[in-house]
Amino acid sequence: MLIVPERHIADLMTREAAFDAVERVFAAMAAGDAYNFPVVREAIGHEDALYGFKGGFDRAGLTLGLKAGGYWPNNLEKRGLINHQSTVFLFDPDTGKVKAMVGGNLLTALRTAAASSVSIKHLARTDARVLGMVGAGHQATFQLRAALEQRSFDKVIGWNYHPEMLPNIQKVADEAGVPFEAVELDGMRQADVIISITSAFAPSLMADHVSPGCHVACMGTDTKGKQEVEAALLARATVFTDEVAQSITIGEAQHAVAQGLIAESDVTQIGAVINGTHPGREGDDQITLFDGTGVGLQDLAVAAAVVDLAAKKGSAIEVDF
Amino acid sequence: MLIVPERHIADLMTREAAFDAVERVFAAMAAGDAYNFPVVREAIGHEDALYGFKGGFDRAGLTLGLKAGGYWPNNLEKRGLINHQSTVFLFDPDTGKVKAMVGGNLLTALRTAAASSVSIKHLARTDARVLGMVGAGHQATFQLRAALEQRSFDKVIGWNYHPEMLPNIQKVADEAGVPFEAVELDGMRQADVIISITSAFAPSLMADHVSPGCHVACMGTDTKGKQEVEAALLARATVFTDEVAQSITIGEAQHAVAQGLIAESDVTQIGAVINGTHPGREGDDQITLFDGTGVGLQDLAVAAAVVDLAAKKGSAIEVDF
Repeated sequence: MLIVPERHIADLMTREAAFDAVERVFAAMAAGDAYNFPVVREAIGHEDALYGFKGGFDRAGLTLGLKAGGYWPNNLEKRGLINHQSTVFLFDPDTGKVKAMVGGNLLTALRTAAASSVSIKHLARTDARVLGMVGAGHQATFQLRAALEQRSFDKVIGWNYHPEMLPNIQKVADEAGVPFEAVELDGMRQADVIISITSAFAPSLMADHVSPGCHVACMGTDTKGKQEVEAALLARATVFTDEVAQSITIGEAQHAVAQGLIAESDVTQIGAVINGTHPGREGDDQITLFDGTGVGLQDLAVAAAVVDLAAKKGSAIEVDF
Repeated sequence: MLIVPERHIADLMTREAAFDAVERVFAAMAAGDAYNFPVVREAIGHEDALYGFKGGFDRAGLTLGLKAGGYWPNNLEKRGLINHQSTVFLFDPDTGKVKAMVGGNLLTALRTAAASSVSIKHLARTDARVLGMVGAGHQATFQLRAALEQRSFDKVIGWNYHPEMLPNIQKVADEAGVPFEAVELDGMRQADVIISITSAFAPSLMADHVSPGCHVACMGTDTKGKQEVEAALLARATVFTDEVAQSITIGEAQHAVAQGLIAESDVTQIGAVINGTHPGREGDDQITLFDGTGVGLQDLAVAAAVVDLAAKKGSAIEVDF
């Protein structure tokens, strides 16, 4: 079996490879070739940690396995380790034998950023110029870096509940040579694309903060109770997601569905747009919204890609298991 | 992190170490210190394989992780590999980082045999002399080998649906220097302990095949629909199990509960007997029955034990992950 440790990922994995892997597996999901297993997520009663497994199988890519790990809130302060810790295990679907073990921390950030990028590629207006960021944490930097490659943006605008964190994303915009401007939430009306990446339990972005023609990627809501945008925005928008079942239960769409503003049938898998079985954006004034909930198959897809890259470079650690 | 490959397990792990690990974790479960996570089990639609995860956390032993793998029915014929394939992954509960990877195939056989042995130690009459085996497959040999160490048995009797397989277990009895006799099912009336280890979907051992004072360990039923013994036997017996929730849904007790012969409250965790909070066997004529369904914590417990043994011997493969 092959091992790719966390410290090798940054040198191996590219945003392009992550994008391709995630786009491909979203397509496979919509085609019925790939599916996610039930998610296990446990508050283990030790170190306030959340731990669990996200597994799946992609028959098209022959990728089988799981991401295991979770959130250890005391890691950084107590031990200087990052709080999100995860590892991906890949299995040979022909035999059930373990095939690879891959550090999952950086990959999780890359696959999450790739998901919003895939939604921008397939749903944002091609003439999009202003990119709005709601949220300015660690994840937001990955989101912004990836999104800037999808359209010819000439301005980034940003809002964060703690404005003192905005320099995090300003730095990314600076590196890309794109001007940055801090705005109030109603300033998001000038955005053609908005990425919301917070861990909020109450909406920040309201329906009237979003202009016609905008594409909104809601990337922060992955748990019952979390909410980034006003439910009314989902009623105004055409809603897409990675996985419908997650979208309406633990994703951003949970609130609009619970309030009867939209139905499950109003939420479309982004893979259908990639596969051309759904038209995607219809017209320049439509608001499109991508509810990125995060699925195990994304983790497996980027891990399989990194194993291939490591094997080609000869940098994977081989263990006779 | 440490890696213990499948090929090292046989030289490292002992039946005693497996017994101690399983007894300890059963005790921790009953004390509320250890719990199993929801089981994921999927027919993946490839190679007719069943694949999934059994995870858990033992706060007492600080053992966190999962067994991943399953059943690949074509492995042996197509590839000369065993059909059951599994791998155990242990995590550091303080940080969420992966700690060890251990081959899980032999360990699964050892932990399952250890479970029935724990039940014999705590529930069988101390003067038990005749050990009955229902089933004579690969698993049965592990069960018999372990059980023979729990009491001074002077005879082994065996029955199997395919009698031509009985030499499998006769060989184990021979090695232990204990006489073996093939019997019909009603011949099990002479047994003081019976281990049933089949994958049947209809009962073989009926209530009137079991004499007063016998201890019966049902080790084969781990799925809805499987059944090894007549439901009426559970009504006659005092019923113990590894985990009550599994016992009444996918274990042997599922049928007696469904037929209203016993209630959930009639099934006791074996750990309560180990901890002394339940008296266990009451009198020489009571029939005790252990419903061994197999839980993830058993896998984690034996894997943690083997990692300790490998570390002590210096035989674990260390990878800077």
